[in-house]
Amino acid sequence: MIRLKPITICFILALAFGISSVFAQPSERDNYKGSAPKYIFYFIGDGMGLSQANTAEAYLAAINNTNGIQKLKLNTLPKQGFYTTYATDRFITGSAAAGTALSTGIKTSISTVGMDAKRQTPLKTIAELAKEKDYKVGIVSSVSIDHATPASFYAHQPSRSMYYNISLDLSKSGFNYFAGGGFKHPEGDGKIDQKNTMANFGMGGDVVLEKKESNSIKIAESRGYRFTNTVKEFKALKKGDDKIISIAPKMAGGNSLPYFIDQKGKSDISLADFTKKGIELLDNPKGFFMMVEGGKIDWACHANDAATVIQEVLQFDNAVAVALDFYKKHPEETLILVAGDHETGGMAMGFAGNHYESAFALLQHQNISYENFSEIIAKYKKKKEGKYKLDDGLALVKKHFGLGDAEKGLELSEFEMQQLQNAFEKSMNYNKAMKKSDQFYLLYGSYDPFTITACHILSQKAGIGWTSFSHTAAPIPIRSIGVGADLFTGFFDNTDVPKNLIKLIEKR
Amino acid sequence: MIRLKPITICFILALAFGISSVFAQPSERDNYKGSAPKYIFYFIGDGMGLSQANTAEAYLAAINNTNGIQKLKLNTLPKQGFYTTYATDRFITGSAAAGTALSTGIKTSISTVGMDAKRQTPLKTIAELAKEKDYKVGIVSSVSIDHATPASFYAHQPSRSMYYNISLDLSKSGFNYFAGGGFKHPEGDGKIDQKNTMANFGMGGDVVLEKKESNSIKIAESRGYRFTNTVKEFKALKKGDDKIISIAPKMAGGNSLPYFIDQKGKSDISLADFTKKGIELLDNPKGFFMMVEGGKIDWACHANDAATVIQEVLQFDNAVAVALDFYKKHPEETLILVAGDHETGGMAMGFAGNHYESAFALLQHQNISYENFSEIIAKYKKKKEGKYKLDDGLALVKKHFGLGDAEKGLELSEFEMQQLQNAFEKSMNYNKAMKKSDQFYLLYGSYDPFTITACHILSQKAGIGWTSFSHTAAPIPIRSIGVGADLFTGFFDNTDVPKNLIKLIEKR
Repeated sequence: MIRLKPITICFILALAFGISSVFAQPSERDNYKGSAPKYIFYFIGDGMGLSQANTAEAYLAAINNTNGIQKLKLNTLPKQGFYTTYATDRFITGSAAAGTALSTGIKTSISTVGMDAKRQTPLKTIAELAKEKDYKVGIVSSVSIDHATPASFYAHQPSRSMYYNISLDLSKSGFNYFAGGGFKHPEGDGKIDQKNTMANFGMGGDVVLEKKESNSIKIAESRGYRFTNTVKEFKALKKGDDKIISIAPKMAGGNSLPYFIDQKGKSDISLADFTKKGIELLDNPKGFFMMVEGGKIDWACHANDAATVIQEVLQFDNAVAVALDFYKKHPEETLILVAGDHETGGMAMGFAGNHYESAFALLQHQNISYENFSEIIAKYKKKKEGKYKLDDGLALVKKHFGLGDAEKGLELSEFEMQQLQNAFEKSMNYNKAMKKSDQFYLLYGSYDPFTITACHILSQKAGIGWTSFSHTAAPIPIRSIGVGADLFTGFFDNTDVPKNLIKLIEKR
Repeated sequence: MIRLKPITICFILALAFGISSVFAQPSERDNYKGSAPKYIFYFIGDGMGLSQANTAEAYLAAINNTNGIQKLKLNTLPKQGFYTTYATDRFITGSAAAGTALSTGIKTSISTVGMDAKRQTPLKTIAELAKEKDYKVGIVSSVSIDHATPASFYAHQPSRSMYYNISLDLSKSGFNYFAGGGFKHPEGDGKIDQKNTMANFGMGGDVVLEKKESNSIKIAESRGYRFTNTVKEFKALKKGDDKIISIAPKMAGGNSLPYFIDQKGKSDISLADFTKKGIELLDNPKGFFMMVEGGKIDWACHANDAATVIQEVLQFDNAVAVALDFYKKHPEETLILVAGDHETGGMAMGFAGNHYESAFALLQHQNISYENFSEIIAKYKKKKEGKYKLDDGLALVKKHFGLGDAEKGLELSEFEMQQLQNAFEKSMNYNKAMKKSDQFYLLYGSYDPFTITACHILSQKAGIGWTSFSHTAAPIPIRSIGVGADLFTGFFDNTDVPKNLIKLIEKR
């Protein structure tokens, strides 16, 4: 394993860097006298900043007709801190750079996964260190398991879009449990990925080594992994089963778990289920490390779809609740961290048009995600072949967002009606020239204009504003409980999270 | 003092409520074994949420050509927490309700100062409790000293706009040091305030008692207070001087300290100077309690004026730095809290039009606040009597915001030019009918259209977005260091801050 060498060197460098750089609480970390936690849960809400979690809390209170908020489980953790998230080459980070910072303690460049900023040296991740220290390791996500955030914990690739190479790194990791969405590119068609292999970066990548068999699922099986992708198989998994890759039975766009809002109140296997199963499979006398990502909070934030965001946050929180139940049984041995990689959308509980008023309960009238609504609009457009009618569009937003339904308190103002009409025209007559206009992007981003306008109007009526279709640089809150939790308060950098974890794990 | 009775009752109720309600860390507060801090600094950034402070940090790094952030002093405090801010009758709070929650530990209604939600019972404030416990007490603000936030610490009035009554409560408090802006309504013309006196709320207010002399400044003098309002007098104040009301020599709108951005790099007496003087005057063997408000962060946020916000945050941070210097000399006896009352503007470090890019250094080209620029536009309009020219307006935004100056990297796009032109037309032809339009408010709030458009365009070019001209419900970060600081981490409610302080002070 020639590749381990630079990892090791870099790991030493990482530790050296850790010791020499300025920390939020260097003394607390340096003086940590406690033991290593036996059980480590590392929750990451992708795109989850301060507002995403708190809006869900305000929504729960609103639909239950109570004042204030109904606290999420994740916000009951007694320690809180914030961290900055910037990448080496951009102030507003991306999930790969943020994931790598959170997995290795070293800042890297945009789109880089588990490698340094120059994309030349692999970096050892906290999950890999945990494995070395005899923890069992689990990686869980609601998006595809080769996506940037989960990949940052086991892969070392110069680009997050090298999904095939990432899928090979996955099975090479030897980790005990992977669960969530599937692989985006298991076939490795040899076009996109081969030219970007690690070999071309002077590191002798997997692709060259595994020439006989190219399908990464089959390669994973040859390395001892077992796949499950039905509810029955999932339920049958039991303590002692090892090297499991458990994939959701039904998947939505991007090989991810479907949005909860699109599942009519129940999912086949939820993020909480995957987390619970992880505990069952990973628990052993040496303990475990499990990373659990709520990956689609981010996606719904990109689309400024508040109702979908809230449901994804609640699903994520259910997974945290599973860990908290475990914590209660092992309070002296467990550490739970609930973090995020960056904020998405500039989401705020305050919108100019509403002045000081909020009406979060209105969001309950949305019964579909932006993703599924966009599909409905696309199908409608195709079917009508130019003979579209605004009334049809208005009927659809009424059915799926409640917009225009006076009984639900969702009357449309003249201005809002105008916005919907403009957007509907654009949706039905979309062309590439439109997209080049500044105004077009400001209004609709890269989404279906009618869908995004419905999301915006409902958000605004609820009292929620958005500033962007991209990520923002807002510092991210981290909550913690248990062994070593004291290290995670204050205002620090995202790289300090794994630095602190290294410190804790190194106590073993 | 008949009025003290309900205060006392309510204080007991407050404690009882405190003990029975659900806390973030009830065990930590209940189990606090330490002593009372001798010196307590309670900093409140009005309108300062997570973004306001962090944007200032990103700006400092940007103008110094360094990556990431340059940390503010306030963010070096080792403990961090967040709290919710909602009022009893509105989810998005206001400064009076938030100030009262932060001063008494009891939630109240919008616009109420130091009284319960029904505006019937005065509530004892943490500053009043400190005085009872022999701490010297100081109240400092960059806005008028009778404004909602400072008033929440010494006044008990059913409305924040009862400035005259509040000014009487000020001198009745017997606190040792007031500093910052002046009184808004010392004459008490007997029209607005008399009908709303405490007497009319069944509480025998001051106004009735003090009929012979109505000027609240003279009443304060009769109660032993000494006013200063020159730099010379201020500098002459020395240890031992007591019952001082020190007012800024020059004042801007609303009897507040002028915006730092309008002061060409130096202020006569800064918030930091007032804080430093406070330490000098208040320091004594029994210790002190000092509340220091950065009041105009909020005002600049209402106007979505990012450059002015940043300078106000930096001024506030300079005041925190003074306290930190003091802390270093008395680490075993001091507690510093740096909090905020609410977020204003939905400020985000990410704007749709910029996608993932930021350019905070561009904000340095703004050399004037929205307030002073609005005045320039108003004067221009008056002078031109309808014969205005767009080119004149463009020359002014170039001079004061750098907009349109290619050398500064501030070329205007066609879309931005159109936005400025539309706004200029509206500024020159403003009428009340315009203001009734939803679109008008969304674009300009209640500000001069041309001014707010210049602020928006510069914010956006820098990569900063805003969602509102009002407050938002974002949870507010609190930072702490020193004796009892551990009580202020986690996720709690704004009322928990004074509840914790009561716990600490009661140790004396």
